[in-house]
Amino acid sequence: MEPKTIKRIGVLTSGGDAPGMNAAIRAVVRAGFYYNLEMYGIYRGYEGMIQDDIKKLESKNIAHVLERGGTFLKSARSSEFRTPEGRKKAYNNLVKHGIDALVIIGGDGSLTGAHLFYNEFGIPSIGLPGTIDNDLAGTDLTIGFDTACNTAIEAIDKIRDTATSHDRLFFVEVMGRDAGFIAINAGIGSAAAATLIPEKKMPIERLVERLKARTKAMKSSNIVIVAEGGKSGGAVEIAEKIKKELPYYDIKVTILGHLQRGGAPSSLDRVLASKLGVFAVEGLMQGKYDVMAGIINNKVVFTPISKAIVGHKEVDEDDFRIAKILST
Amino acid sequence: MEPKTIKRIGVLTSGGDAPGMNAAIRAVVRAGFYYNLEMYGIYRGYEGMIQDDIKKLESKNIAHVLERGGTFLKSARSSEFRTPEGRKKAYNNLVKHGIDALVIIGGDGSLTGAHLFYNEFGIPSIGLPGTIDNDLAGTDLTIGFDTACNTAIEAIDKIRDTATSHDRLFFVEVMGRDAGFIAINAGIGSAAAATLIPEKKMPIERLVERLKARTKAMKSSNIVIVAEGGKSGGAVEIAEKIKKELPYYDIKVTILGHLQRGGAPSSLDRVLASKLGVFAVEGLMQGKYDVMAGIINNKVVFTPISKAIVGHKEVDEDDFRIAKILST
Amino acid sequence: MEPKTIKRIGVLTSGGDAPGMNAAIRAVVRAGFYYNLEMYGIYRGYEGMIQDDIKKLESKNIAHVLERGGTFLKSARSSEFRTPEGRKKAYNNLVKHGIDALVIIGGDGSLTGAHLFYNEFGIPSIGLPGTIDNDLAGTDLTIGFDTACNTAIEAIDKIRDTATSHDRLFFVEVMGRDAGFIAINAGIGSAAAATLIPEKKMPIERLVERLKARTKAMKSSNIVIVAEGGKSGGAVEIAEKIKKELPYYDIKVTILGHLQRGGAPSSLDRVLASKLGVFAVEGLMQGKYDVMAGIINNKVVFTPISKAIVGHKEVDEDDFRIAKILST
Amino acid sequence: MEPKTIKRIGVLTSGGDAPGMNAAIRAVVRAGFYYNLEMYGIYRGYEGMIQDDIKKLESKNIAHVLERGGTFLKSARSSEFRTPEGRKKAYNNLVKHGIDALVIIGGDGSLTGAHLFYNEFGIPSIGLPGTIDNDLAGTDLTIGFDTACNTAIEAIDKIRDTATSHDRLFFVEVMGRDAGFIAINAGIGSAAAATLIPEKKMPIERLVERLKARTKAMKSSNIVIVAEGGKSGGAVEIAEKIKKELPYYDIKVTILGHLQRGGAPSSLDRVLASKLGVFAVEGLMQGKYDVMAGIINNKVVFTPISKAIVGHKEVDEDDFRIAKILST
Repeated sequence: MEPKTIKRIGVLTSGGDAPGMNAAIRAVVRAGFYYNLEMYGIYRGYEGMIQDDIKKLESKNIAHVLERGGTFLKSARSSEFRTPEGRKKAYNNLVKHGIDALVIIGGDGSLTGAHLFYNEFGIPSIGLPGTIDNDLAGTDLTIGFDTACNTAIEAIDKIRDTATSHDRLFFVEVMGRDAGFIAINAGIGSAAAATLIPEKKMPIERLVERLKARTKAMKSSNIVIVAEGGKSGGAVEIAEKIKKELPYYDIKVTILGHLQRGGAPSSLDRVLASKLGVFAVEGLMQGKYDVMAGIINNKVVFTPISKAIVGHKEVDEDDFRIAKILST
Repeated sequence: MEPKTIKRIGVLTSGGDAPGMNAAIRAVVRAGFYYNLEMYGIYRGYEGMIQDDIKKLESKNIAHVLERGGTFLKSARSSEFRTPEGRKKAYNNLVKHGIDALVIIGGDGSLTGAHLFYNEFGIPSIGLPGTIDNDLAGTDLTIGFDTACNTAIEAIDKIRDTATSHDRLFFVEVMGRDAGFIAINAGIGSAAAATLIPEKKMPIERLVERLKARTKAMKSSNIVIVAEGGKSGGAVEIAEKIKKELPYYDIKVTILGHLQRGGAPSSLDRVLASKLGVFAVEGLMQGKYDVMAGIINNKVVFTPISKAIVGHKEVDEDDFRIAKILST
Repeated sequence: MEPKTIKRIGVLTSGGDAPGMNAAIRAVVRAGFYYNLEMYGIYRGYEGMIQDDIKKLESKNIAHVLERGGTFLKSARSSEFRTPEGRKKAYNNLVKHGIDALVIIGGDGSLTGAHLFYNEFGIPSIGLPGTIDNDLAGTDLTIGFDTACNTAIEAIDKIRDTATSHDRLFFVEVMGRDAGFIAINAGIGSAAAATLIPEKKMPIERLVERLKARTKAMKSSNIVIVAEGGKSGGAVEIAEKIKKELPYYDIKVTILGHLQRGGAPSSLDRVLASKLGVFAVEGLMQGKYDVMAGIINNKVVFTPISKAIVGHKEVDEDDFRIAKILST
Repeated sequence: MEPKTIKRIGVLTSGGDAPGMNAAIRAVVRAGFYYNLEMYGIYRGYEGMIQDDIKKLESKNIAHVLERGGTFLKSARSSEFRTPEGRKKAYNNLVKHGIDALVIIGGDGSLTGAHLFYNEFGIPSIGLPGTIDNDLAGTDLTIGFDTACNTAIEAIDKIRDTATSHDRLFFVEVMGRDAGFIAINAGIGSAAAATLIPEKKMPIERLVERLKARTKAMKSSNIVIVAEGGKSGGAVEIAEKIKKELPYYDIKVTILGHLQRGGAPSSLDRVLASKLGVFAVEGLMQGKYDVMAGIINNKVVFTPISKAIVGHKEVDEDDFRIAKILST
């Protein structure tokens, strides 16, 4: 597409927050300044776009945000943006501020909104994959995923201390409603006895067998990783089933919950977010619209948003196999 | 009391594990070596004493344990030790190994057992306060408490990132079934909107008022710390009550759970455990029996176990007042 | 003293920064608001007082600062404040803003300045001990010390990993120019082979002997903690001397340096800073001037600044003894 | 090549240790058990192979090592292995134990040794890239690199706290003697004012200019990352040059040093090490000899060691460009 001349970029974060979103915002803004553009922060996602919660950003706004979790632009769900009236209002606000391009940082819901908005109003826009779930096609890694994995294993390392001291069996529930990426990484990274992910159903009998085999092998601690909302149920549900089968076990459940969303981003997430942020601005200047900037085989690649949100990324079969071999 | 000549000390950990227990064991053993004593590890607490799970410890057994969470001697609950027959069996095993003194590291249940055992068999013994709950009289600080507080605020720091990004209200449940020490520290240390501890009942209306006041004051995040098992209910229960009163709030609950028990001990816990461990051995050599070594006003003090387990330590009123002033 | 009515408190941080300073500032400001006072931030310490870098603080200024290292009010050395003219200028600026009381957070240099200033102009002022060195009389603990100890042992834990893998001897230099508090804590907390502190001269021969003894005992790693600027020289100097005596050792030096000054404050430092901050404001309201608020035996105590800066706090002999026993 | 039947695999770590080596050893051993092989640990690298420091490994030897930094098999430099006599001795020891295949975990020096040894004695062997420097061809990532980057940015985050509080200029030296990978990642990840890497010479004037420009732009902190041993000199040297040009700056130097080598491995390093460890064993069983298992575009790839050690991996030009854009 023949690139339009861009002068003012608006940037927003939407959906569940993820560590590294601040690093991505900073990179977008700083790259904008590098190319002499004016940069606007749209607060609270699409909701702020509708309610005109939009401010010009200066250098000081992005000082010391790179290393912080969360998003200083805040995020919110917007039901009004799902209506044509809402989106029209939002568009009018952009026009009012002279914003002629957008960078949207978020998960698949946020990118779906971006795609819809682009098709209605044609305002040049690029999406960045910001979600701890790593479930977007068009990128090997989403911003926030690596940090969430590190947070999970650090927590599980602590749990293992007490599990080992008491010869206990722990069920640890990690995030990832539709995708077992955090779970499979945490499972491998924490020497888990088993890892239950949404993509694969593990019959309760198989889990019982494996735990029994480990008891025979005198393993001193047993940690089972459970992805939330998996087909076999959450950690509480599975723990109850196992308790019936193995009543002599001392069983505990820990749900890591929202602490997986926060925290200073890891080195990888900072670099990933920084790189994608710069490419987003450069992509807009080169006429790449309605695409998501992702990382594939270590290179930045622009994928049409329509593809990024439709495709379903699968947990690598190798990873699943490795997890199994190492848990025996 | 005229000190008996001591040659072989047995050391054990009992009850819930706490970070710093390994540092305490190491200090006991190393101090024993320093004074040319033989040192024995009694594994799995009183249960191992009954089942003769007792091994001579050497220097290599305590290498690289100081910095690890949990207890390499393991811990277990023992119902048999509650019977005279069980205790007799345990005593016979000590005699068999020629163990003529004991160091017991644990909470009030473990120390109660030690007191009983001393009165029945007269074997010189000293207790060390090892519990994250900080609820023992006879010491300003228990081993593991400081680490648990640090773990709690680090987790809450992460939760605050996401709370702030979404303007959410989080109820975070911390450990401390009968004592609000972790909760009050976490409350002050995380700028909590309110802190609910077992020692004080806060009517739900007061909490609602305070949250409403904060909303008016445009506070961007609201974190309420709840000690588990408090009089007002756990975090889930309270969150549900608040949801009825403040339905427009976006409310989430996180239960930190067992990760508070693990992790590398903090500097303070390492130093405290090391100091008490050395004093325990020296105390035994000086004829101080049936006492707990604790820290009071920065000095090591020996308190009769009978007093340490009876007295109830209260959360400092000043701390409670400070928490309140700073949460407004 | 009959308390003057106080309406506007200025708060500043001065000297080397310490983790927890932000928590202290927040507590001072929030306590001020609680008592309906107006609060002013004096930026860059005494230098900012002279240059009128003074701003009224509002609630939003202290949001999300408690958990951050450093000081958002910044700190600076001021040579001009050492002159009567400089101090006069500073006083005039306070008068201009109607500031009728001061809270000064810093080390002994900063408190000396506060004392001088109070005696010249009589403006009610209270000092808070903010320094990682823990070298102030009038308080058992200074704000920042506990965090610095934790930072030191976390770094040394990592160094131990590589020391053990290679059977190396590491000299690790920690901060504390005139006081060995960080060193002695790090020494105990990291199972160091030896700890060299400014307060005690250890002849190089004794250190050589101890290292040789450890080699015989097959200790797999040797870490020697050195306080910067000790009588026996810094880590580099001592390492060179040892190299001459024990040439077959694989010796490395690490100087931890300024990373010990930063980082999120520990739970203990947050609570300490919060408590002292509230008491500082209340102390001013009660007519306690020219004093430092410190913690002694777990209670807040006001000590005349003249005493706090003159007295020299010594490393506890017990701590030194414990370090020695545990390093054999 | 027609695969030989393998029954006993020896595993060793060699060269500078790296976080994740323990995870790699564990994966190799556990995969060996999965395929019913006998597994032997060769302690202290090639030196232990020569001195017959070789022990059969059992399940308990690899319990709770995955999450620990360093290598429990230890590492050492061996000058004797550089002689034909030394290697012959080493080979004889393998024969004595019936070890019929090797997994060597280390950097390019270690792999060069493995290549030489294979060509002399034909014993099936596979190398794994274990080094924090990330400078091996044949893999996108080496085991330990990600952890070292995280350690570096966490330390720099702390340094930034104090740099900002005092408006100071810090030169932080990170590891990477011949390769700027850690430096460039730390530079992007810590919002550095400049990053000096071995691969690119930056004239001191350009650095001075950039710092002056930042001063004008009122940047409150300035951190310059310097890779050790770069063409422009180390951090101390460069800091001195800058001091002459910008005498009014408050300049400090921190050399992160060996703490970058230790610490619990990151999630990514645990998963990478686990995966490569399993593939190494499977590769040996499939007749893949004298190769290194690496990760390229997210897939495990076997590269002849002769290529892996010759090729020089370059810092991505994009990364360098991003670092520059984001530091302006």
